Amino acid sequence: MENILKYINDNREEFVDELKEFLRIPSISTNPDNKKDVRKCAEYVKAQLEKIGLENINIYDTPGHPVVYGEWLKAGVDKPTILIYGHYDVQPVDPLELWTDPPFEPTVRDGNIFARGSADDKGQVFIHMKSIESHLKNTNKLPVNIKFIIEGEEEIGSVNLDNFIEKNKDLLKCDYVVVSDTAMFDHDVPSICYGLRGLAYMQVEVTGPNRDLHSGSFGGAVNNPINALSHIICKLKDDKGKILIDGFYDDVLNLTDKERLEYSKLPFDEKKYMEGLEINEVFGEEGYSTLERASGRPTLDCNGIWGGFQGEGAKTVLPSKAAAKISMRLVPNQEPEKIEKLFTDFVKKISPDSVKVTVKSLHGGKGAITPIDSPGVNAAVEAMKKGFGKSPVFTREGGSIPVVNTFQTLLNAPTILLGFGLPDENAHSPDEHLNLNNFHNGILSIAHYFNELSKI
Amino acid sequence: MENILKYINDNREEFVDELKEFLRIPSISTNPDNKKDVRKCAEYVKAQLEKIGLENINIYDTPGHPVVYGEWLKAGVDKPTILIYGHYDVQPVDPLELWTDPPFEPTVRDGNIFARGSADDKGQVFIHMKSIESHLKNTNKLPVNIKFIIEGEEEIGSVNLDNFIEKNKDLLKCDYVVVSDTAMFDHDVPSICYGLRGLAYMQVEVTGPNRDLHSGSFGGAVNNPINALSHIICKLKDDKGKILIDGFYDDVLNLTDKERLEYSKLPFDEKKYMEGLEINEVFGEEGYSTLERASGRPTLDCNGIWGGFQGEGAKTVLPSKAAAKISMRLVPNQEPEKIEKLFTDFVKKISPDSVKVTVKSLHGGKGAITPIDSPGVNAAVEAMKKGFGKSPVFTREGGSIPVVNTFQTLLNAPTILLGFGLPDENAHSPDEHLNLNNFHNGILSIAHYFNELSKI
Repeated sequence: MENILKYINDNREEFVDELKEFLRIPSISTNPDNKKDVRKCAEYVKAQLEKIGLENINIYDTPGHPVVYGEWLKAGVDKPTILIYGHYDVQPVDPLELWTDPPFEPTVRDGNIFARGSADDKGQVFIHMKSIESHLKNTNKLPVNIKFIIEGEEEIGSVNLDNFIEKNKDLLKCDYVVVSDTAMFDHDVPSICYGLRGLAYMQVEVTGPNRDLHSGSFGGAVNNPINALSHIICKLKDDKGKILIDGFYDDVLNLTDKERLEYSKLPFDEKKYMEGLEINEVFGEEGYSTLERASGRPTLDCNGIWGGFQGEGAKTVLPSKAAAKISMRLVPNQEPEKIEKLFTDFVKKISPDSVKVTVKSLHGGKGAITPIDSPGVNAAVEAMKKGFGKSPVFTREGGSIPVVNTFQTLLNAPTILLGFGLPDENAHSPDEHLNLNNFHNGILSIAHYFNELSKI
Repeated sequence: MENILKYINDNREEFVDELKEFLRIPSISTNPDNKKDVRKCAEYVKAQLEKIGLENINIYDTPGHPVVYGEWLKAGVDKPTILIYGHYDVQPVDPLELWTDPPFEPTVRDGNIFARGSADDKGQVFIHMKSIESHLKNTNKLPVNIKFIIEGEEEIGSVNLDNFIEKNKDLLKCDYVVVSDTAMFDHDVPSICYGLRGLAYMQVEVTGPNRDLHSGSFGGAVNNPINALSHIICKLKDDKGKILIDGFYDDVLNLTDKERLEYSKLPFDEKKYMEGLEINEVFGEEGYSTLERASGRPTLDCNGIWGGFQGEGAKTVLPSKAAAKISMRLVPNQEPEKIEKLFTDFVKKISPDSVKVTVKSLHGGKGAITPIDSPGVNAAVEAMKKGFGKSPVFTREGGSIPVVNTFQTLLNAPTILLGFGLPDENAHSPDEHLNLNNFHNGILSIAHYFNELSKI
């Protein structure tokens, strides 16, 4: 590793200069005017993959923007195969006037590189490229088998990626997926995200009388669908945030003592959290901390509700209909389809006969987890320790990342999220930037990671 | 009375012909193009009041359409003074193509007179005019003191009437108000409406975090304002329709045994009622019938609710705000201001500290009742018996009639609603009509009513 690390340290400035080239290409995937730029960026990525020494490099066209692929599979069948995922497309730049420097003219200030795409995700893709280069340039080999897939539609919902993965399951077959497209927990806190929540998103519609009624003439004698819907929602979760749906918690993979210990170590300031949201109290399932509640435990939220008169003033209507969107964040091993059924059955059970209630599922996805004592995670810990000079923290994300779900479903591969951005680097806002220390330590960490993974 | 009744019977056809003249004037108050017609109609009413023998007749201008007033106060101070209220303006006629005959060309078919305004309210105003005429023409006097006020803005919310009444409190001072602007309970069921519900209309707004959040990142740790609002609404009324607000029922004037007996006599078909609304069950406070629940008991209804994402599909938002419009129908002797305070206090009490809740009052009005064993009502019973040849039923309206509230508040006078329309006479629709038997029996009843009231 010595030569490799020396190479990374010697080229610290050079790598930043090279990154600038990548950042200069305005690969805004959502803007039709930039279609050629996105293509140009794919060609740039292809050239980079060639330059760093990958093989079997290809630009795969899709109905939208292309996917670039490269691999190096000569480590041997006894070594793990790692699929690295990233994206080369970027967010739009509006409002342009809020940028200190033009978004596609990369500038270094105060140890950060400013440009659209610096943190999300070109800088992080470049970390992997330069780690691979550092190995291949110095040793002519990689300690593990590498597959590298970089797409051009992440910022528009990865609309063609699922289809691409489905079609190329064999090409993408791997033992672990590594994604660097998220942020570290905080400044100077290297982080390994090992879990994501799933989702079951439902719509509940309540119909009372067949038409809107005068609340004076009928109020008191005919059930009101808004009141009935409120009663249903109220019965889904108690005043303390515990979900009351029969069987809801049955399959929940409970947090282990080790996980809870890791949660407790996270540098989290609850007072600041509350101040930032201007709330007087946090709220949630008893017996769990705020961070555990927000990512390690399942929950139920109304995402929308509507019915009756929403205008100014008073209209005395007893409406015919009311509806709500209600979603549940799931944790491993809750199955969305099973939860959807439990939800539907429970809502039907608690609905009064005086109204008609329909329930439908709008969207669902599984949670994901890579156990923190699994070999892939242990290797990441060792790598981050060496790359950053300190132990990483373990985090779980409360939301879902659709591509991780796809990897899990189609490739049956666990994903480890090694983010080198920071929460305040304006990923989707003006003056997006990436801390160059994290960029450098990221390259070191990933170079070490390949090495650590080879020991598995 | 003999001469008077003979006069009414002899002029049965003549009165209908005279009514046609009134109905030919297109006094649509909401349409600026008809402003002159509305004025012309006020002039017509004035001329009629002169013709039937009232005195001190005046057209009072308002910022909108005028109010017409006339009186006959020579019955003596020992006799009661009755204020009769009605309106000479009418609803628009659209859709015109659904009328069998033009709306302002009155036509008699199958014992009904068809024209816009026939039931609402020119025909019913005419009943009072012809009753007064019948007395004064035959006896040169009325058994009671009469004040007659006919406004031209009822169909646009009586926007200037409150101010007129406020300014003319002495002019309008009376012992009873009689309003004929409602419908009988059913065909062949003469009805006395002796009570109305009041209203306290509130808006509840719940604020959680200071901005919309990602439900994945924050769900489970931050209270959701839609869920919190649903919990609040759920705690206002139990599953059986009983209101749980502390002190809510304290001032409720309970239904008397006599009232409940009268309710039970009403020809009401609950199966048909449910079929008409397409509901499987009626719903409401235990221990009361559907009609009692809908008019004799207070209730609480959500009139509107909104928050979060209401569009198609799934958006994983934990919204910052949610709000609902919640109104309570009140019965005598509940005071709207007191109920508003009880509601506000209770909502504050049950609101969790994890959200901010504001409550405001949008509108309120007292209920009204004229006890069914009061002299004014007893006199109406006797009069209706004689006019229709059968005993009237007693009804209470579930809604409020704002002008009744005004009479109660400003004149401190109880109101009796003697409606001679029918529920299916298309008051605000094409082919509005009035049954001519009810028109005739109405004139007889009111002529008797003056007489019966003089015996109080």
